[in-house]
Amino acid sequence: MTAAPPIDAGAVVADLHELDRLTGGPAGARRVCWGEEWRLAREWLGGKLAEIGIEPDRDEAGNLWAYLEGEREPALALGSHLDSVPAGGWLDGALGVAAALGVLRAWAGNGRRPPRTLALLDCADEEGARFGRSLFGSSALAGTLDPDALTSLVDGDGRPIAEVLAGNGVAPERAPLASRRLERVGGYLELHIEQGPVLESEGLPCAAVAGCAGVERELLTFSGQAGHAGTTPMEARRDAGLAAAETALAVERSAIGGGGVGTSGLLELDPGIVTAVPGGARLSIDVRHADADALTQVHAEIHGAARAAAERRRCSLASEPLWRIAPIAFDPGLVSLAAAASLNAGGRGEPLTSGALHDAAEIARVVPAAMIFAASARGLSHTKEEDTREPDLIAAIEAFAELASEAAAADA
Amino acid sequence: MTAAPPIDAGAVVADLHELDRLTGGPAGARRVCWGEEWRLAREWLGGKLAEIGIEPDRDEAGNLWAYLEGEREPALALGSHLDSVPAGGWLDGALGVAAALGVLRAWAGNGRRPPRTLALLDCADEEGARFGRSLFGSSALAGTLDPDALTSLVDGDGRPIAEVLAGNGVAPERAPLASRRLERVGGYLELHIEQGPVLESEGLPCAAVAGCAGVERELLTFSGQAGHAGTTPMEARRDAGLAAAETALAVERSAIGGGGVGTSGLLELDPGIVTAVPGGARLSIDVRHADADALTQVHAEIHGAARAAAERRRCSLASEPLWRIAPIAFDPGLVSLAAAASLNAGGRGEPLTSGALHDAAEIARVVPAAMIFAASARGLSHTKEEDTREPDLIAAIEAFAELASEAAAADA
Repeated sequence: MTAAPPIDAGAVVADLHELDRLTGGPAGARRVCWGEEWRLAREWLGGKLAEIGIEPDRDEAGNLWAYLEGEREPALALGSHLDSVPAGGWLDGALGVAAALGVLRAWAGNGRRPPRTLALLDCADEEGARFGRSLFGSSALAGTLDPDALTSLVDGDGRPIAEVLAGNGVAPERAPLASRRLERVGGYLELHIEQGPVLESEGLPCAAVAGCAGVERELLTFSGQAGHAGTTPMEARRDAGLAAAETALAVERSAIGGGGVGTSGLLELDPGIVTAVPGGARLSIDVRHADADALTQVHAEIHGAARAAAERRRCSLASEPLWRIAPIAFDPGLVSLAAAASLNAGGRGEPLTSGALHDAAEIARVVPAAMIFAASARGLSHTKEEDTREPDLIAAIEAFAELASEAAAADA
Repeated sequence: MTAAPPIDAGAVVADLHELDRLTGGPAGARRVCWGEEWRLAREWLGGKLAEIGIEPDRDEAGNLWAYLEGEREPALALGSHLDSVPAGGWLDGALGVAAALGVLRAWAGNGRRPPRTLALLDCADEEGARFGRSLFGSSALAGTLDPDALTSLVDGDGRPIAEVLAGNGVAPERAPLASRRLERVGGYLELHIEQGPVLESEGLPCAAVAGCAGVERELLTFSGQAGHAGTTPMEARRDAGLAAAETALAVERSAIGGGGVGTSGLLELDPGIVTAVPGGARLSIDVRHADADALTQVHAEIHGAARAAAERRRCSLASEPLWRIAPIAFDPGLVSLAAAASLNAGGRGEPLTSGALHDAAEIARVVPAAMIFAASARGLSHTKEEDTREPDLIAAIEAFAELASEAAAADA
């Protein structure tokens, strides 16, 4: 095995700043997928690839691929996504693409072929910011994208997804054909910011990621009886707002008890005025856990608490599933390599579980995958205040490059 | 003392149905103050008064007065308000005006003068539905209306209150002059629906009202830190929504403990989306109690709970007073007469406390006042479903007429 050429992590950071000046800035990133600024970001990426003699192409789902031929196949794919939420952060997604570019650039400038083909992958529409369908490109790769489920999607201006995608050379019904690309791929690695506060609170720059937590997401609707705030005696009330308040507190209690996370981010009262007892309340619950059984248990506990609160207050309760996904574990061998690389770069030795979803979660269904997280300043993401201290960025990029090098050198 | 002529309660109910056909109907009452339908209702009332030979006039605040000369003065005023909330109920306010009309009609048709002058009073803008200022006309009578506090008020279409009032012949700066009308008045009586479920639950048609509860109304704002629902560990959260949820439950607990009522009718989360820990929450509290000290105590307890919840969750807390009014006790002598009249009509012997405010609460500041409540079906009001069973209406109207008769006959 020949040692891999060292990555120029500083150049990766410089690329990220350049991309931010072009498609972001003080008001945040503007790279919403399928739009002008996202296409501009891809043109910028194409220019960077041209500098190292590589011409990218696109698959049927709009994912961008750039191959650097190696000694062997299957290829090792490295990537993430250039698209952002509106007024988003400069690193969410872009970091992983820039780091992948950095790895290809190191090999391209080295004069030797890498031990296996390297494929840079920029997934289309990870965020789902415009049509509400996240992980578009990576789910097409993984074979989990159902084109029929897309037909009713429209953006905020009422434009159908098919029309907008057509303007980007993508036909929804042909998107699943992108999955053929993975036949040539033997592994997938992704560098991403943590988007949470754990690494920063530990004073560590990076960590391996063992997998993505499963999610149970629902909307609960409590229906009681609205009444006058002054004339309805306490014992006569059927206050749906208080049933929802009790349930929100139960979400927290059960999540802590079960070792996961649970959130009530949406709570709307009806009629929602100062002088009326709430007759209706809509409460969202979002529960996440790395372990499928524990997720089921926490979710069931919350449902029990919601039913009890509704019954105690003589409200009815309806629940509408919003979304669910089982926990996804990454490849143990690749996670070990990622943990070793993280430790070498001064990062965490123990892998974290991702509470957020990433393209790697879809791709891991089909090929061995792993991730590295870079610390997030103040845990913030999906905002213009998203940031990572430069030394942490450098350490995380170097850990990712070492992981890529080790994975490329390993037997398929 | 001559016996008072009996009221035709059936005619009062017929009047109410007629008014409802004219300015309401299945979609609810449309008599929002200062508008076309409210003026129509007043024209209708003018027609009814003309039938008994009385011509009404208006004071500087837009209140309508109709006098039937009696043997003595000061006059006994009988009234309520014709204005309604949008899509409101057919009885809220209108019942009291129609019952006052019924009392005047009974005397007018009798050929004798009543023992003291009777004054029908239809207060302007009790509801405050258009400009958010309730008890407009009655507070002008009571001397508590500050014209300077009105200047910034605009309706939903952005029209200033002064402009709208001018279209109704009212100049805000002259409205306080209406208080001179009360110099001629020695007592005020009002029949109103309960707007709550107590009488219905007791199977009783009516009750005397001992006074109006005091109100403390505030908006609490909790500020924590928004975060990603998947990546923010439970122990790192500063969830403003949960601080608000705990406080809403404390409002209920303290109100029950203190023997009053307490409501959190408004709760808004920021950003208020399914996948974000709420970084901000606005919660309204509305606490009412007949006893001033107990009101202070309950309010202080809730504030303590809010501060504790905010502190526990590392949120800041700001409070903004929305409105407050001290409890108002009606005149003990008139309340006794009202209780006796209620009992005679098959109603409650013990007076209730009103949790809602009424024109009587303002007028009671200046002249002795009392009220009678009629039962409300299902406790509903401010909705097209507002109703009172006809036998309960009849009993309440007869109790009111007896009260008016006794009060008019009593020494001033």
